[in-house]
Amino acid sequence: MTTQELVAQIRTKKSFLVVGLDTDLEKIPSHLLKEEDPIFAFNKAIIDATHDLCVGYKPNIAFYEAYGITGWKSLEKTINYLNEHYPEQFTIADAKRGDIGNTSTRYAKAFFESLNFDSVTIAPYMGRDSVEPFLAFEDKHTIVLALTSNQGAFDFQTQLIDGSELYKKVLETSKTYTNSDRLMYVVGATKAEYLTDIRAIIPDAFLLVPGVGAQGGSLEEVCTYGMTKDVGLLVNSSRGIIYKSQDEDFAEASRDAAKAMQQAMQRILEDRS
Amino acid sequence: MTTQELVAQIRTKKSFLVVGLDTDLEKIPSHLLKEEDPIFAFNKAIIDATHDLCVGYKPNIAFYEAYGITGWKSLEKTINYLNEHYPEQFTIADAKRGDIGNTSTRYAKAFFESLNFDSVTIAPYMGRDSVEPFLAFEDKHTIVLALTSNQGAFDFQTQLIDGSELYKKVLETSKTYTNSDRLMYVVGATKAEYLTDIRAIIPDAFLLVPGVGAQGGSLEEVCTYGMTKDVGLLVNSSRGIIYKSQDEDFAEASRDAAKAMQQAMQRILEDRS
Repeated sequence: MTTQELVAQIRTKKSFLVVGLDTDLEKIPSHLLKEEDPIFAFNKAIIDATHDLCVGYKPNIAFYEAYGITGWKSLEKTINYLNEHYPEQFTIADAKRGDIGNTSTRYAKAFFESLNFDSVTIAPYMGRDSVEPFLAFEDKHTIVLALTSNQGAFDFQTQLIDGSELYKKVLETSKTYTNSDRLMYVVGATKAEYLTDIRAIIPDAFLLVPGVGAQGGSLEEVCTYGMTKDVGLLVNSSRGIIYKSQDEDFAEASRDAAKAMQQAMQRILEDRS
Repeated sequence: MTTQELVAQIRTKKSFLVVGLDTDLEKIPSHLLKEEDPIFAFNKAIIDATHDLCVGYKPNIAFYEAYGITGWKSLEKTINYLNEHYPEQFTIADAKRGDIGNTSTRYAKAFFESLNFDSVTIAPYMGRDSVEPFLAFEDKHTIVLALTSNQGAFDFQTQLIDGSELYKKVLETSKTYTNSDRLMYVVGATKAEYLTDIRAIIPDAFLLVPGVGAQGGSLEEVCTYGMTKDVGLLVNSSRGIIYKSQDEDFAEASRDAAKAMQQAMQRILEDRS
């Protein structure tokens, strides 16, 4: 998917919501456990109930990998279902991978080719030759961890290098990578006050923003400091949408939660137009 | 596996070699491609031919993930084969994972419980709450990327924070994590000159050292600067061992290469005893 197509979808739906499919057998409604593939059954119901309110879906790969081959099958079914029925959706493999050259190419092929995701999240610690193999794929997007929403972000990401935080060094350096126009960045909503500085370095790149809601981040603040003329934001919500009910009505409950987010986003987009 | 058991194995075998199972269908002997599971057939032959010369095996997960469910099945068969037939081997899931709290626990369960690996490699960028979930598992080891063997290591890892490189900050900070005695670290053999500084910070922790051979690192230098009284080193070789021949004799060829490494290690261990 091109960035232009993503922006067009955001404009049409008046939404920049991404639904996180962090699907956990211990949290999904118990009546689904008798299904042949409970994880896929849950995801399918959530997707069918929310697709017109969001612009993307983000399965966190850990949740699938935890179930081994069974989980990998559920992931494959989920991405295939999305690509077949809702090809307009921007799909994110939240994998946080990263390895040296040839090995990164393996991961890139796994997510971009075999599974046909539009994007994948990457940890930047190993530097240029761990990121550029992902950037070689046309119309695919590589989402680098910059400033994450967790407390551990302060261990290293905000440490000063030559008077400037490591995450800024990551932003600056990654701009010099080949095909850097295919980069997006993870910036946690819990650190919205950093967004002004971030936009000074990467004025246009899309940001994937977790941490609104459950983790305490504010949608308003994220938009105030992070929004660009092409919106430039993908705000993710996982638990806040998919686990609103553990009963038969779980899909409608997820739709209600997604609708509330979409309406808040629509108000912000209209205020700014 | 306890560290004491690992050290005992090193002393018995006079080897601290880890064989990297970076198994690639394009590189294995073509006669194996007619097997039901060529990746497992290759791994099994390599393991059977080398197990008495090495103390561990390290599948790089990217190589398996690239083949989707098929690859995941080959990985599962490989680790099960190791645990059943060679339980003394120290097994390393080279996954370079890392995510926030609950999600890291998912990855930890995938590798430590479902697959029953002894250890897993982890990227440190997200900090304490991304690493500690792995450290919660008793008799399991978490191998944090410190200073990697690739060129991209200079992008961030060697950048100065308060006059000290980021990788040193990673070493220092990780020592404060709960259950830090379960930590090991990745240090590339191509950067052996850094090992004196590294040993000043972590005098006893085991280091997983890639990059000897194919990438140009020197076994002698790594041992001179990195060895501890309990050896404290696991030197990995992948391509330099497993792809020595593409013919029917590939397993014997891998044994010859592993034997050469083991003998070099034995000489070093005897010189120092």
